[in-house]
Amino acid sequence: MTSTLILLRHGESEWNAKNLFTGWVDVALTDKGRAEAARGGELLKAADLLPDVVHTSLQRRAINTAALALDAADRHWIPVKRSWRLNERHYGALQGKDKKQTLEQYGEEQFMLWRRSFDVPPPPLADDDEFSQAGFPQYADLGDELPRTECLKDVIARFLPYWESDIVPDLRAGKVVLVAAHGNSLRALVKHLDGISDEDIAGLNIPTGMPLRYELDDELVPVVKGGTYLDPEAAAAAAAAVANQGR
Amino acid sequence: MTSTLILLRHGESEWNAKNLFTGWVDVALTDKGRAEAARGGELLKAADLLPDVVHTSLQRRAINTAALALDAADRHWIPVKRSWRLNERHYGALQGKDKKQTLEQYGEEQFMLWRRSFDVPPPPLADDDEFSQAGFPQYADLGDELPRTECLKDVIARFLPYWESDIVPDLRAGKVVLVAAHGNSLRALVKHLDGISDEDIAGLNIPTGMPLRYELDDELVPVVKGGTYLDPEAAAAAAAAVANQGR
Repeated sequence: MTSTLILLRHGESEWNAKNLFTGWVDVALTDKGRAEAARGGELLKAADLLPDVVHTSLQRRAINTAALALDAADRHWIPVKRSWRLNERHYGALQGKDKKQTLEQYGEEQFMLWRRSFDVPPPPLADDDEFSQAGFPQYADLGDELPRTECLKDVIARFLPYWESDIVPDLRAGKVVLVAAHGNSLRALVKHLDGISDEDIAGLNIPTGMPLRYELDDELVPVVKGGTYLDPEAAAAAAAAVANQGR
Repeated sequence: MTSTLILLRHGESEWNAKNLFTGWVDVALTDKGRAEAARGGELLKAADLLPDVVHTSLQRRAINTAALALDAADRHWIPVKRSWRLNERHYGALQGKDKKQTLEQYGEEQFMLWRRSFDVPPPPLADDDEFSQAGFPQYADLGDELPRTECLKDVIARFLPYWESDIVPDLRAGKVVLVAAHGNSLRALVKHLDGISDEDIAGLNIPTGMPLRYELDDELVPVVKGGTYLDPEAAAAAAAAVANQGR
């Protein structure tokens, strides 16, 4: 018996469309993003790949992507669990900044270090910055754990406890699990599942709105490394576009 | 200390707009219904009446109303619980039938008996009817409990166990509770809260998309009988329109 896990990155957000660093800023989906989410759900339905439970972040672009996809798949009624641990990587002082301007201002090396280095976070975001989430009620329970910036290593460190405590038990119970989250929280999970090195994860990009299916064995190791996109050609084209952001 | 409960009937659905008996048929919201839901959320936000947890039925018109309202209120991230016990009343063999045609065919007395009598259900719906929910995965756990028709008395009987087991504990824990449901599951709840007689409940109509606030005392008795609509004038006009359906 394998366990079935489906990963879904949210559809295009307002700040994806504007090419801004978003992180924990809680922007909405665009019309295109809503259509991507519904298309993701239609792919699930066509593949008869029907989630029994969904896990989302606390951010509206993932929450609404899950809702639109599940509605399109006639699975709107399944149980929902949410956690800040599935949130996008906190981009620190880059939140709200234009990616192209940041590239021009700081140069290729610093830009790619902030975007893709495993363990170098951007400068922290001040609590009084207009793009800070300090004081937001959804994060009140975090106290001092509230991130002010994160590298991918930090995302892994706060994501994996939730994977173990909440997602793995659903998989062990035989449920088909949908995780609707973000580029970097999903990269954190894929790195863990596929045993990708700290260096190689820099080259992995996950496209928006494309369901990625993993069958996991008894040890929760992927039967097919990297999983299987339900629409592989579209996913490959979209991943290439993500890699070129800021260009 | 009072407990705060907010009731929200889903916005206009495709079959509200067509004036058909809907019941357990899982129709979508119209554009107007989506706008009503968002407006309901804006009213919550303007009143600083912010839910800590939401309970919905298993039906998409209530699920999506909750999602749109909470998004508009910046409370999209709160925990969600769902149950078939919050579903609309099952309308039996009337499901899918035109309300006006039904009125003309059966006459005023029979029509009002089916719509508003406390304990006379319409004829049951056959499992092989195109509008039956027999065999739907979201109701698989119900087994023989799956309704084939219901009167309001039946709705109360299956709603109240969930009220006691899941909603009351949230209220006792001090949470602001949003219940996003349906005309008749909310009438069942209001009848219980306000102690309305089996006869008088026939005259009570709950408008779509209008948040109805109850403050409940330690005995869970409403401080203000009937609760308070956040937009009382609009609610009164809309309730009158519901009462006239089929005319």
